[in-house]
Amino acid sequence: MTELKNDRFLRALRRQPVDRTPIWMMRQAGRYLPEYRATRKQAGSFLDLCKNAELACEVTMQPLRRYPMDAAILFSDILTVPDALGLGLYFEEGEGPKFRKTVRSEADLAGLNSITAEDDLGYVMNAVSTIRQELNGMVPLIGFSGSPWTLATYMVEGGASKDFANVKGMAYDKPELMHGLLSLLADAVADYLSAQIRAGAQAVQIFDTWGGSLSAGGYKEFSLKYMQRIISRLQSDAQTQDVPVIVFTKGGGQWLNAIAGCGAQGVGIDWTTDINAARSQIGDRVCLQGNMDPTMLFASPARIREEVAAILAGFGHGSGHVFNLGHGITPGVNPDHVTAFVEAVVELSPQYHQSS
Amino acid sequence: MTELKNDRFLRALRRQPVDRTPIWMMRQAGRYLPEYRATRKQAGSFLDLCKNAELACEVTMQPLRRYPMDAAILFSDILTVPDALGLGLYFEEGEGPKFRKTVRSEADLAGLNSITAEDDLGYVMNAVSTIRQELNGMVPLIGFSGSPWTLATYMVEGGASKDFANVKGMAYDKPELMHGLLSLLADAVADYLSAQIRAGAQAVQIFDTWGGSLSAGGYKEFSLKYMQRIISRLQSDAQTQDVPVIVFTKGGGQWLNAIAGCGAQGVGIDWTTDINAARSQIGDRVCLQGNMDPTMLFASPARIREEVAAILAGFGHGSGHVFNLGHGITPGVNPDHVTAFVEAVVELSPQYHQSS
Repeated sequence: MTELKNDRFLRALRRQPVDRTPIWMMRQAGRYLPEYRATRKQAGSFLDLCKNAELACEVTMQPLRRYPMDAAILFSDILTVPDALGLGLYFEEGEGPKFRKTVRSEADLAGLNSITAEDDLGYVMNAVSTIRQELNGMVPLIGFSGSPWTLATYMVEGGASKDFANVKGMAYDKPELMHGLLSLLADAVADYLSAQIRAGAQAVQIFDTWGGSLSAGGYKEFSLKYMQRIISRLQSDAQTQDVPVIVFTKGGGQWLNAIAGCGAQGVGIDWTTDINAARSQIGDRVCLQGNMDPTMLFASPARIREEVAAILAGFGHGSGHVFNLGHGITPGVNPDHVTAFVEAVVELSPQYHQSS
Repeated sequence: MTELKNDRFLRALRRQPVDRTPIWMMRQAGRYLPEYRATRKQAGSFLDLCKNAELACEVTMQPLRRYPMDAAILFSDILTVPDALGLGLYFEEGEGPKFRKTVRSEADLAGLNSITAEDDLGYVMNAVSTIRQELNGMVPLIGFSGSPWTLATYMVEGGASKDFANVKGMAYDKPELMHGLLSLLADAVADYLSAQIRAGAQAVQIFDTWGGSLSAGGYKEFSLKYMQRIISRLQSDAQTQDVPVIVFTKGGGQWLNAIAGCGAQGVGIDWTTDINAARSQIGDRVCLQGNMDPTMLFASPARIREEVAAILAGFGHGSGHVFNLGHGITPGVNPDHVTAFVEAVVELSPQYHQSS
């Protein structure tokens, strides 16, 4: 493989010295970019775009042509695994993801397909190797998956949910069934991330978008435990053990201490967490990733720069910070505001990395 | 006024000894009750129900006839103040509250009505005094308002919002305008709560439903500061200073320490906060209110009882806990499950209040 020309992101995840704070953005390949919207139109549906390796590679590269990002992230969806398990993923315009089938009983669970990521999610591995080749060592490539709990919420509810009544009802009333589903998903996700790494991913992120809907106890029992299992599977395999893992639980700020102990090298924090307090609490054990409010990108470039300065100062001196938003970028953002955001990180962060 | 026959709720807020943990439920008068749905139909619209003192009193009393709740809460809406300010509140079926006008400029702000709660929100004061009379000392009556930040989100967005792009854009880019709006709202809410107290409310709660959408710094600047101002206004007036105030910021678990210092006697916590950790951190300074996951009411009565037991044990011995859900009750809940919930608190909590 080609040597990596920019390894700032991987060094920060390992808390090794860097010249400046690395940056990438969750959903950096996405609807706020006109070139993305053009490619998406060309592809047809969102899923068609995910399944076409050349076009998925094209949209992955688009933000890198505009901004000096320190990592690329695979263009895909968090729900590819449940789709392969046989639930029938589809998207209704303006309504988010839906499944044709749900999992609410032992019979539903038993009826899921047996899958291997390499065979049944081959289109994702094609995208990973195509992107890796196209990157040609420019920056590292991040692979990803939804967390078992997050996947389970969609699989039980049949789509997005406001109050998670069905999936939480199952967790509370049929814990064995829920643990059965989560175990199956943890194995499938570990296999999926492992296959992405073998195909070329140089770091992986587990998106736990809905872990924050649980109680403190429920989070540890139904979400964190299964992410821990995935990480320990990756770390016990010589082919995957050196690849850093980032865990991002939206709304998980109260549980940072527990999350920092799950084995991940990086912990994503959303914008509600004070990064200074987070570093005081756990920053020497893991790398922190985040955490500007995505809505700040609607403010003026000058205000964005102020906020970047405040977050950099909040984290303070030394390595172990990957700059990011606290959640995915919002579709309506002006791409020029992203320029101001990334430039601020590039220009203001070196002072925090000078050796004293 | 009639003497209060059950003062458990007020005693717990003051951290005075009680025989058992008091309980009430956010949105206890609401759609999960068939008798509520019948009265609502009779009233016409939701706002018609709020504005009819007899019917508002009837729905306030309904949960007390079924369950041994230790407090009643005024039936009203959190958006009555912006409605009186002239924005034109209305409800579209299934879409939540909307305003005919929004506040996005100095001119919009200057165009708001000058109001006094007693004159312009007289229908609320009528409801308070009617309910207080009907209660006849059975349990205390809680008055309430939305927090300034929460009211501002609806006033700037024109209704509910997913990403708060407009209101946060204003906070970030036009902080003077935002502080002008929040100052006006803090004064109006202080006047409103003060009028509710003079009309008979024996405690008041400030619902900060959307404070949790802010960053840590933004929360202190745009939400907490203005709730603090309201509380200090109430505490500097001989007519209102002895009435306990509860502040509830949904999603505010990371900021409990700051919230506990805002002057409120009670701090509401949602279900994502570990009540044991919360008490360790702040429990000796304020009363904690909460915090069962509302979705737990979809589980079996046996499971609900287990959860109540865990929360009671988590808080531990002594006064200073008002049992509640971590957010309003969900419309689809079976009223019999509420029976199991309340019974569990009544039966399992006395052991935590025996003097040693």
